[in-house]
Amino acid sequence: MRDAVVLLSGGLDSATAAALTRPRFRLHALSFRYGQRHAVEIQAARRVARALGIRDHRVVRIDLGVFGGSALTDLAIAVPKWRRIGRRIPATYVPARNTIFLAFAAAWAETLGARDLVIGVNVLDSSGYPDCRPAFLRAFERVLIAGTKAGAEGGRWRIHAPLVRMTKAQIIRAGLRAGVDYALTHSCYDPGPGGSACGACDACVLRRRGFEEIGMEDPALC
Amino acid sequence: MRDAVVLLSGGLDSATAAALTRPRFRLHALSFRYGQRHAVEIQAARRVARALGIRDHRVVRIDLGVFGGSALTDLAIAVPKWRRIGRRIPATYVPARNTIFLAFAAAWAETLGARDLVIGVNVLDSSGYPDCRPAFLRAFERVLIAGTKAGAEGGRWRIHAPLVRMTKAQIIRAGLRAGVDYALTHSCYDPGPGGSACGACDACVLRRRGFEEIGMEDPALC
Repeated sequence: MRDAVVLLSGGLDSATAAALTRPRFRLHALSFRYGQRHAVEIQAARRVARALGIRDHRVVRIDLGVFGGSALTDLAIAVPKWRRIGRRIPATYVPARNTIFLAFAAAWAETLGARDLVIGVNVLDSSGYPDCRPAFLRAFERVLIAGTKAGAEGGRWRIHAPLVRMTKAQIIRAGLRAGVDYALTHSCYDPGPGGSACGACDACVLRRRGFEEIGMEDPALC
Repeated sequence: MRDAVVLLSGGLDSATAAALTRPRFRLHALSFRYGQRHAVEIQAARRVARALGIRDHRVVRIDLGVFGGSALTDLAIAVPKWRRIGRRIPATYVPARNTIFLAFAAAWAETLGARDLVIGVNVLDSSGYPDCRPAFLRAFERVLIAGTKAGAEGGRWRIHAPLVRMTKAQIIRAGLRAGVDYALTHSCYDPGPGGSACGACDACVLRRRGFEEIGMEDPALC
């Protein structure tokens, strides 16, 4: 069984991506404490990793807040409440976030001798971030082939994004079949003091709609 | 004058890259404390930034040591002393380092509204790291075009590597013309307790040869 590094935020998508790829890979999970206002998701990531039997879970601390520019890392910028997903990129976009996350995942993969990364991005029921698109992932694979020791020695790299073309409802259905306990996950960008979901940000609304579509209550809210 | 983010390690190459691009850009310098054994280079980066009149210099702390796998971040792996530059990638290679550094530079650039990054990599008198090659830089530009808000909105990105095809002697000559004070820089991978250069690692040997070739003493050693 090959090793792979999975980016695990503790949200619904990354938990599902991990569960869907678990049969094929020995997973190593990577989370980030990046100054996000919803740092409560790190605890969710720990719960999810444990539930999926991922023993090797590391949390890397990086300071994206030092640059500012996002509602997720800058408390002076409000998290926008639900808007129709459109062509505009919302204020919750964190500059180059997935580029940074994948770079760290690749660094860890190289030391493990792994050439597979897993990421739970998707383009349909998402906030429209450019670093969630297939073209971005393919371009990043080419960076790894050109810029790593493994690539220079002729190795391949593969970024697996099993959810990339799925709707939120399809993701939840697939995750339930793969044994994800969504009660353990956290999605809200703007949680209350006790970590409770706001119910109104993009992440909350997309999640609620997904559960509504399959006629199920969100177990994290029960 | 456009803004650009320059990766400034405090070494000879990045100081020169900054000096050569300074006439064209308002530079913002970025350094990393990444668990490197030669963290003394951060002080050199501060001196260089000040000497070049770069007012905006940030040092981001990231923990690459958590993954290990490099002689530069893992004290259990010895820094190899001089070897002939060959096709093998040495133990001082840090997995995905420039991928991570450029990702952070891009994040900062996005918040500044900048689309230009500067990096002092070169392929001739270098240690043969794959993430210093032109193909890697071009691939990374495509990641930024595909994966950033600026790119999604039709913007271009450019990674400037003014030294990429220069020998160490050419770099030093160009830097001297551009006003670099090499006494302020630090290159050694394996410095002694007081920060003194070991004289025997790849970085030291390449640097010494460069100064020898132009018939000048290294001012950092005088």
